[in-house]
Amino acid sequence: MLEVVILGTGNVASHLFKAFSEKENIDVIQVYNHNKESLKSFSNLTNTTTNIQQLKKADFYFIAIKDDVIAEIAQQLNKYKGIILHTSGAVGINRLKHTANYGIFYPLQSFSRNTTIDFTEIPICIEANSAENLEKIKTLALTISKDVREVNSEQRKALHVAAVFINNFSNHLYAIGAEICNEHAVDFSILKPLISETASKIQTLSPYEAQTGPALRNDHKTIETHLAILSNKHKNLYREITQSIQDLHGKEL
Amino acid sequence: MLEVVILGTGNVASHLFKAFSEKENIDVIQVYNHNKESLKSFSNLTNTTTNIQQLKKADFYFIAIKDDVIAEIAQQLNKYKGIILHTSGAVGINRLKHTANYGIFYPLQSFSRNTTIDFTEIPICIEANSAENLEKIKTLALTISKDVREVNSEQRKALHVAAVFINNFSNHLYAIGAEICNEHAVDFSILKPLISETASKIQTLSPYEAQTGPALRNDHKTIETHLAILSNKHKNLYREITQSIQDLHGKEL
Repeated sequence: MLEVVILGTGNVASHLFKAFSEKENIDVIQVYNHNKESLKSFSNLTNTTTNIQQLKKADFYFIAIKDDVIAEIAQQLNKYKGIILHTSGAVGINRLKHTANYGIFYPLQSFSRNTTIDFTEIPICIEANSAENLEKIKTLALTISKDVREVNSEQRKALHVAAVFINNFSNHLYAIGAEICNEHAVDFSILKPLISETASKIQTLSPYEAQTGPALRNDHKTIETHLAILSNKHKNLYREITQSIQDLHGKEL
Repeated sequence: MLEVVILGTGNVASHLFKAFSEKENIDVIQVYNHNKESLKSFSNLTNTTTNIQQLKKADFYFIAIKDDVIAEIAQQLNKYKGIILHTSGAVGINRLKHTANYGIFYPLQSFSRNTTIDFTEIPICIEANSAENLEKIKTLALTISKDVREVNSEQRKALHVAAVFINNFSNHLYAIGAEICNEHAVDFSILKPLISETASKIQTLSPYEAQTGPALRNDHKTIETHLAILSNKHKNLYREITQSIQDLHGKEL
């Protein structure tokens, strides 16, 4: 049995708690948070504590708390022999260096509170301070995901930025699409199949191959028509992304 | 039996040909293109012609040819009594006004040559020069799609721009993600589950609700870390989209 303590009660903490709890060979023996209120939803399921000095002895301690305080929390865990892990894309492994055994367990996915997620398909990026610890982290990660990859801190930070473009920024483009629909009294739901198809194409084509549209075709007339329709707040972004597509594909506007 | 003539041999023409050919009550009796070579793949399946003066009598003529020449092609069809349709998102219905019966049949999807598409789920935006023609177009559209909506030319042009943000521009963000991966020797495929999840969330949440990330949280530290990692060619777009997210959500950077 692998014993796990989770520090934090946010989205990543909650989803990890759920994924681990469903596995027979893993026991989440404790959840810590400084705020008692946020522990409520866990208190029927496992031991909880607001006192970081009273953590149980475990094989793994997950720091699933916001980036700013990871180093500070880690320092308070230096007496434990278990592996101290953080789950952040943006924080280097060296922030855990005051502990004896440490590593990274970064699930590359966007977690929302109320969505159910199948962890099996989520890539988990792992890193460790020793080959031995890397093996242990890998064994744990493979219990919940079939896609576990060794990724160093520099690569992981790059992935984190790439994820911002792919997830946060794409979502914002959907939001602009919704704004344009609202401005013209069109139901946004009509665009949902296109959103699905756009994402689905990338499973088989590279994004470079999958590119279509007036920017790629260098279709000035359509671009001008679009700029004329767009409200001022969207014109600039339309121009910038059009230019960026043309730069990538070697076109000149 | 509804008889259809298709003008054009590109992506939209090919996908419409396939969708209509599969229906028992629809007969694609002819495909026209000015270029003989491009008719080859249709010549075993139906009658083909390069002479626009020799089109057969049909219930519907689909002009699935590039936007610039729609009006010119339509003018050459003014002797036909069948309904003249174009399939473009960006061209107004008035470009068909020299014909007797006309309308729009705009499938809101991105078509690639070599992908199979289930038309059932593709929204079709229709418009016509009369209530009677609208009904006929609707009947035809409903044979291949379960989502047929009346959309006027102004709304359709707005949808076309929204589709550029949602499809072309999102795909370009995937391409930037792939570039960042290449620069740091990470396999882009690790981001594919995140791409799927980002699109999939929008089926149940509004894009406004689904927004996450450092721009929304106004997390300066992460934003600065990201800008430091990004190559110069991506910094500007990162800043612009971050700003646009903050404008939409009423944050100040």
